[in-house]
Amino acid sequence: MLTYDLEQRGEHSLYHYLYLCIKRDILAGVLTQNERLPSQRSLAKHLQLGVVTVGTAYAQLVAEGYLYALEKRGYYVSAVDVIDTPAPATTPEKEVEKPILMDMEEGGGGAEDFPFYVWAKLTRQVIAEEGERLLRATPHSGAHALRVEIARYLSQFRGISALPEQIVVGAGTEYLDNLVVQLLGRDLIYGLEDPCYPKAQEIYRLNGATCRHIPMGGDGVSLDDLRESGADVLHLSPSHQFPTGIATPIARRQQLLQWAEEGERRYLIEDDYDSEFRFAGRPIPSLQSIDRSGCVIYTNTFTRVLAPSLRIGYMVLPLSLVPLYQQKLGFYACTVSALEQYTLAKFLSEGYMEQHMNRSRIRYRAHRDRVLESLSTGALRGKYTILGETAGLHFILRLHTRYSDAALIQAMERAGSALHFLSGYCTQSPDAWQHHLIVRYPRISLERLAQVVEILAPLL
Amino acid sequence: MLTYDLEQRGEHSLYHYLYLCIKRDILAGVLTQNERLPSQRSLAKHLQLGVVTVGTAYAQLVAEGYLYALEKRGYYVSAVDVIDTPAPATTPEKEVEKPILMDMEEGGGGAEDFPFYVWAKLTRQVIAEEGERLLRATPHSGAHALRVEIARYLSQFRGISALPEQIVVGAGTEYLDNLVVQLLGRDLIYGLEDPCYPKAQEIYRLNGATCRHIPMGGDGVSLDDLRESGADVLHLSPSHQFPTGIATPIARRQQLLQWAEEGERRYLIEDDYDSEFRFAGRPIPSLQSIDRSGCVIYTNTFTRVLAPSLRIGYMVLPLSLVPLYQQKLGFYACTVSALEQYTLAKFLSEGYMEQHMNRSRIRYRAHRDRVLESLSTGALRGKYTILGETAGLHFILRLHTRYSDAALIQAMERAGSALHFLSGYCTQSPDAWQHHLIVRYPRISLERLAQVVEILAPLL
Repeated sequence: MLTYDLEQRGEHSLYHYLYLCIKRDILAGVLTQNERLPSQRSLAKHLQLGVVTVGTAYAQLVAEGYLYALEKRGYYVSAVDVIDTPAPATTPEKEVEKPILMDMEEGGGGAEDFPFYVWAKLTRQVIAEEGERLLRATPHSGAHALRVEIARYLSQFRGISALPEQIVVGAGTEYLDNLVVQLLGRDLIYGLEDPCYPKAQEIYRLNGATCRHIPMGGDGVSLDDLRESGADVLHLSPSHQFPTGIATPIARRQQLLQWAEEGERRYLIEDDYDSEFRFAGRPIPSLQSIDRSGCVIYTNTFTRVLAPSLRIGYMVLPLSLVPLYQQKLGFYACTVSALEQYTLAKFLSEGYMEQHMNRSRIRYRAHRDRVLESLSTGALRGKYTILGETAGLHFILRLHTRYSDAALIQAMERAGSALHFLSGYCTQSPDAWQHHLIVRYPRISLERLAQVVEILAPLL
Repeated sequence: MLTYDLEQRGEHSLYHYLYLCIKRDILAGVLTQNERLPSQRSLAKHLQLGVVTVGTAYAQLVAEGYLYALEKRGYYVSAVDVIDTPAPATTPEKEVEKPILMDMEEGGGGAEDFPFYVWAKLTRQVIAEEGERLLRATPHSGAHALRVEIARYLSQFRGISALPEQIVVGAGTEYLDNLVVQLLGRDLIYGLEDPCYPKAQEIYRLNGATCRHIPMGGDGVSLDDLRESGADVLHLSPSHQFPTGIATPIARRQQLLQWAEEGERRYLIEDDYDSEFRFAGRPIPSLQSIDRSGCVIYTNTFTRVLAPSLRIGYMVLPLSLVPLYQQKLGFYACTVSALEQYTLAKFLSEGYMEQHMNRSRIRYRAHRDRVLESLSTGALRGKYTILGETAGLHFILRLHTRYSDAALIQAMERAGSALHFLSGYCTQSPDAWQHHLIVRYPRISLERLAQVVEILAPLL
């Protein structure tokens, strides 16, 4: 029976530590391919853990492909396709603790540049100016002053004309996505781009809605597949899609709007999360700005351009949905505190947002150029193609290799580097998107990048 | 056809103004009992409004009992049971604008007493001390420092022993109620006290879960009715229930815990929103503190004791649910900003919360005593019984009268005063709870109370 000393788990939760131990044993060959693991109940009893704890660890290992489950038979170790790497051998114990050399997908952007002292100053000013009025709840859709500033910002930078009445402020787009399902209904079918960022799908699923995955092509989601899917609502990021980096061209945008107009209760949820950083060419108009029939719900967040700890997102509803929103969801209190709403309104109205965005854009562009330069002169030269680099905070490094993404991930993990490929975000046809490595460049150190490239290049 | 000048709507939204106009015409007798209203489509066309706008106004009027709907036939004016009042006659135009003399249920407590300058000072300190660390996202369940302080606070004031790992911080209990359904599942049946505060029900309904209403008796929900209902989960406020003011006695609490232990996936959601203010007797232990089987999810908010604009709620999960929470909902970002989390942690750790609660308790108790004194010497003397006054921020004034609650509400509305009765919060048997007037006393002015009582007493 598997035996681990759970007292050694340090800061880890029980389930996470158990997951780490089993993973370590699989990678170390202690547990071998097709070996059957003890049942959840017997391992729980043996380690004096809850069955749920063991079940959670097993589920995580299944999700990551280390285990597979056979119904009514149990959990088995998957085939682990090891490539020999020149990385230093590590004992299993060390592996649990080993810091990662580099995660190519480490969260991107914002906070490094954030003018914290300006924000702190504005916060103090708001406290002084607004005083006890800050204690009063703002309207459910957000403080009027902030909604006016968001409307101005959208008009100036995204060509979106929205009344403050159409804007709903909430504690992040995850929260707002929950509201969207409650507004439109969980009886509708929600279409998602495939591959896509998994959180939106997770939220729809948790809300009990049916999701369909619509394959992405070079021009965004395919219209034929969209029609075939039976989706009522399409959630998409036409500006710079994650993870593909694809910008949906204007002709496809118009086709999507036409699709939405053709049916009752058809909507496009335009997640414009990465539209602020564009480094070449003219921006393509947002779907919202060319929507004539009120089928677009536009969502965006300030968290990404400001700081991860500021949860302030917003959505722009079509005018036709505003009364329904008020009737169904108007009872909810606004989830963002008044102090932060007024501080953000000031940050916008006094021009700090524009300054911040311009500075960030320059810095990200320069860093992106250095990363691209380093790649083009390094050991990977001639072994890759760059895609989706003209906008947003990530690009794609298409590797010229015959190895599977899974094999490369594993080989590099043993060398202390985490790689993430588009195929990992695919639900339907991961094979179509092999070899597309995601590089969230804003936090990548050039020194470490060179090291990673040195290890990766000979493996291709 | 109804014709209103929508240009006169001022700050009102279209649908709300239309609602006000129709309501005014019903109250003024311009629209008479059983009169059929134009169809939504034809009125929308006539007034050049959206059909949804008209539909929303009609729905609101139905919800408030001014209209009734006959399926496939349309909307009709309800019987409006007018009592003559000595209130000054108002022209319909004035009525729309007339300020309310007093709303006996106007939101209760907190902000008046809130030590705003302390909060502002702590906010500035946190900015100075934490600096740019404030920009980093806190863990999904909230900043560790805050969860430690909440655990201490709960242990000190509510006898609850909870590990910081069991605590989840979120932007208000409404948000957390959404998470609870996503955690436990919408396939479960959620039982609610009847009468109850309607928001929790609304949230379960919006999440697609089935709700059952369990009648309240003098000792809380009836066990027999609970068993019969088929509910898996019971949402309750055993400390000082809204609106009845009932405190569930210890024996019933134990029975409820036993009920929960008897079934798989049975849970009690203990909404302890009003436990902080207790003016007589010893507090009854919270359900969470006497739960031995991990069936209680405890929820509470700081919004109520601090200020309406601070959306900080929390829940205490049973240990057994923590891994499931991490697995299912751990991907959500925390919805409360880091600045407010650290400020609240300081407010708790430096003893300001305790001071504030003590001050508020003294002030509320004194004001409650003045309100009770004023009632006992006023025109209502001998015409009422007081219930549920030993705890919480509202009490019940049971009126000795033969008139229906609806008739009294209407009569008093014409006199400019809004009354709310328990019957208005009932889903199943409003007749059982007639004549129970809800008095949220913290903001009631004694002068206005005397005026309202002068008008109300002769109507009974």
